[in-house]
Amino acid sequence: MKKLLFTFGLFSTLAVSSLVNSADKPSETDIVAGLRDAALNSNLAYDILESLTTEVGARMAGTPQDALAVEWGVNKFKALGFDKVWTEPVTFSTWVRKEESASLVSPYAHEIKISALGFSVPTPESGIEAEIVHFENLDALKKSPPNSAKGKIVFISHKMEKFRDGRGYGPVVKARGQGAVEAAKKGAVAIVIRSVGTDSHRLPHTGMMRYEEGVTKIPAAAMSNPDADLMERILRRDKPIVMKLQINSHNGPEYTSHNVIGEMTGSEFPDEKVVIGGHLDSWDLGTGAVDDGAGVAITMAAAKIIGDSPHRPKRTVRVVLFANEEQGLVGAKAYAREHQKDLANHVTGAESDFGAGKIYAFQSLVAQDNMPVVNKMAKLMKPLGVEYLNNQARPGPDLIPMHQLGMSVFSLRQDGTDYFDLHHTGDDTLDKVEPENLSQNTAAYVVFAYLAANSEQKITRGK
Amino acid sequence: MKKLLFTFGLFSTLAVSSLVNSADKPSETDIVAGLRDAALNSNLAYDILESLTTEVGARMAGTPQDALAVEWGVNKFKALGFDKVWTEPVTFSTWVRKEESASLVSPYAHEIKISALGFSVPTPESGIEAEIVHFENLDALKKSPPNSAKGKIVFISHKMEKFRDGRGYGPVVKARGQGAVEAAKKGAVAIVIRSVGTDSHRLPHTGMMRYEEGVTKIPAAAMSNPDADLMERILRRDKPIVMKLQINSHNGPEYTSHNVIGEMTGSEFPDEKVVIGGHLDSWDLGTGAVDDGAGVAITMAAAKIIGDSPHRPKRTVRVVLFANEEQGLVGAKAYAREHQKDLANHVTGAESDFGAGKIYAFQSLVAQDNMPVVNKMAKLMKPLGVEYLNNQARPGPDLIPMHQLGMSVFSLRQDGTDYFDLHHTGDDTLDKVEPENLSQNTAAYVVFAYLAANSEQKITRGK
Repeated sequence: MKKLLFTFGLFSTLAVSSLVNSADKPSETDIVAGLRDAALNSNLAYDILESLTTEVGARMAGTPQDALAVEWGVNKFKALGFDKVWTEPVTFSTWVRKEESASLVSPYAHEIKISALGFSVPTPESGIEAEIVHFENLDALKKSPPNSAKGKIVFISHKMEKFRDGRGYGPVVKARGQGAVEAAKKGAVAIVIRSVGTDSHRLPHTGMMRYEEGVTKIPAAAMSNPDADLMERILRRDKPIVMKLQINSHNGPEYTSHNVIGEMTGSEFPDEKVVIGGHLDSWDLGTGAVDDGAGVAITMAAAKIIGDSPHRPKRTVRVVLFANEEQGLVGAKAYAREHQKDLANHVTGAESDFGAGKIYAFQSLVAQDNMPVVNKMAKLMKPLGVEYLNNQARPGPDLIPMHQLGMSVFSLRQDGTDYFDLHHTGDDTLDKVEPENLSQNTAAYVVFAYLAANSEQKITRGK
Repeated sequence: MKKLLFTFGLFSTLAVSSLVNSADKPSETDIVAGLRDAALNSNLAYDILESLTTEVGARMAGTPQDALAVEWGVNKFKALGFDKVWTEPVTFSTWVRKEESASLVSPYAHEIKISALGFSVPTPESGIEAEIVHFENLDALKKSPPNSAKGKIVFISHKMEKFRDGRGYGPVVKARGQGAVEAAKKGAVAIVIRSVGTDSHRLPHTGMMRYEEGVTKIPAAAMSNPDADLMERILRRDKPIVMKLQINSHNGPEYTSHNVIGEMTGSEFPDEKVVIGGHLDSWDLGTGAVDDGAGVAITMAAAKIIGDSPHRPKRTVRVVLFANEEQGLVGAKAYAREHQKDLANHVTGAESDFGAGKIYAFQSLVAQDNMPVVNKMAKLMKPLGVEYLNNQARPGPDLIPMHQLGMSVFSLRQDGTDYFDLHHTGDDTLDKVEPENLSQNTAAYVVFAYLAANSEQKITRGK
């Protein structure tokens, strides 16, 4: 008995994996619970996020800050002691935002806070001055008679609703993506939508829009919610609104950024990997703390904590910081192209790209015979307040291309109630992030990545 | 008995005060309680505020919207059926804000959200580009060695604390008022302070600043709290910051605006009046919903509800919508000059100028023999959640000149916890106002104004 006690003391003091033989090695559950609790008590993710948002700031794809972010990613992976660190090129067309402004000319002069939408064409240098024509939503615009917006600026006032799972986004974001095309079809000279966002601050939400071959390209912008409220109140008085809009944006040259990748090598099957990560680019208005600095920080921290364990999981944990998610999943598509032949070694993955709220649930998308490892995850995530939902996970945006090729995915669901208050605005800054939420997220990613990487049976999508 | 019932029916149908003899007239307490409860159930204040913020919008002193606001005030008083409505001229120097921008040049390019402070001189057209020198607060700047800011842009990072009574404002606003003078004395070329505000949005807080004879006038601006946080984090890394600042503002011509005044005439002593009101001007960045559209709306609504009673109080209730409070209490000073000789007939007053939060307490500043009416107010405000504090009221800003001449004042204390989130920002818009708070405020002003106007003994400051 005395000897056994001594032995225990020795191991806990040295904690050197090479000294630990299989009989003495703690159980997988104990290892993962220990790493999970270490993550909960660690500020690492917050420190990484503080570093990214302070040392790089905003990092829109194709800007000088994009390159700075790539450099930051490589250096941070190295400083954290990742076993392998490399970059892979990602090439895309760029768009440059310059001055943009809008104001009411009539019934009285008033500044409207706008942001041009990504890839909007500019207005003429002297601006566009035209009467507003109001539609409740994209469908109302589509159903309106031909020429319903002839010579006018379309205003779509569709307001996004707030939900934990962000399901208010889909119905409203259509107006951002397709609004310019539909407005141009009705003869409009420009479109200004109510921002796709749930806040009530004078900060517009930017985001991508699309043009269609054969349809006139008209300038497109989003205004802040309080500005849209004001426009609606004026219009309810049957007062015509004349707006002046000036957007000075242009398409830039082709640019090559990089996916930045760091690995903690697996102990038995180093070629097989679990992919976690987020996207390194942000929009230009804020410093991308919640979109997606948080995802970058959470997944880098989780892999670091796993890598520092004396008990490495069997498979590799790979962290991918994707380039240019915001302007069309460009880094994600490049990654899938590059690694298509290695798909079978990508056993599963999860992306963190929904802000910095607590994780409240998770989903899997795996073959039925992988359910034992899912159940282990559920058991070890439960103390974090995370419940298992179902086997119908959908991939995070940057895992869509790999998922389409057949990769299994998990989804760790964050509370996104306030996510769309900040999403794509100037307000996406570090002060909005609660450090303890990042720690909880990191702990959940530790549980997921460790158990997925250490599974006896290789995880597959099945079916 | 039958006859008496008939008589009652007649009175309640006609509701004509001249028909009511003293035996049938309800008690003062019943009258005031009834008006108070009517105010609580009325949306009138919110409707007035909705009208002002929608039909006039921002209304900075000296702008075309200033004139529009005066016109709105006159028309609104008339539409509400005030007995007398008139304007009194207020003349002042103006200041015009035009373009303004700031950005970090080093360690990396980043937009800093600023607002020029009121009456700031412009930068040269090409801007000012200089290194930042950081001070924790105004005192640290004052105590620094001569030339401590030589050729640099001073950054004061003093952060305002949040309190219900707004006491965090005083210690921090000094840097806004005096910062440019103190920075210039140390050789600075410009000053950019952390906004005097308690929010964490990318919306700077504007406000007045002052120059001193014989001290170089340097441009002055405030940056948003998240921008100041970022600057502090960069500086903690011992990275020098170079900032580029461009402000294109200028002094405008002299302008004549107007105090707008409406009265509900007293039934016995029409020349004696109780003054309530707010200021009609706002800063230019928002639509002045809480500063001070709310005060305008609350006091107009309270006087309207009193005026509609069949039981008018003995004295007149006068609502003054003061011109140009923001740039130096100009309308308030003009009012005091104009009405100095009538001071004895201004029995007391209260201004609403601290946003749209609930009133939680009130204070008087009256002669001791007026305490019976104060006690009546306390009793009738109690159901509104308003307690009596003490006889040490301080005047609302626009009553300072009249108070200095000797007028008695009351202070109805609003919960200002969130007031400095919005104060002087683009975010001061209607959506921030809870209609039920305005109703509660209106009810408290009804109790105060009615009882002060109806007091047996004329209220005086005493001593």
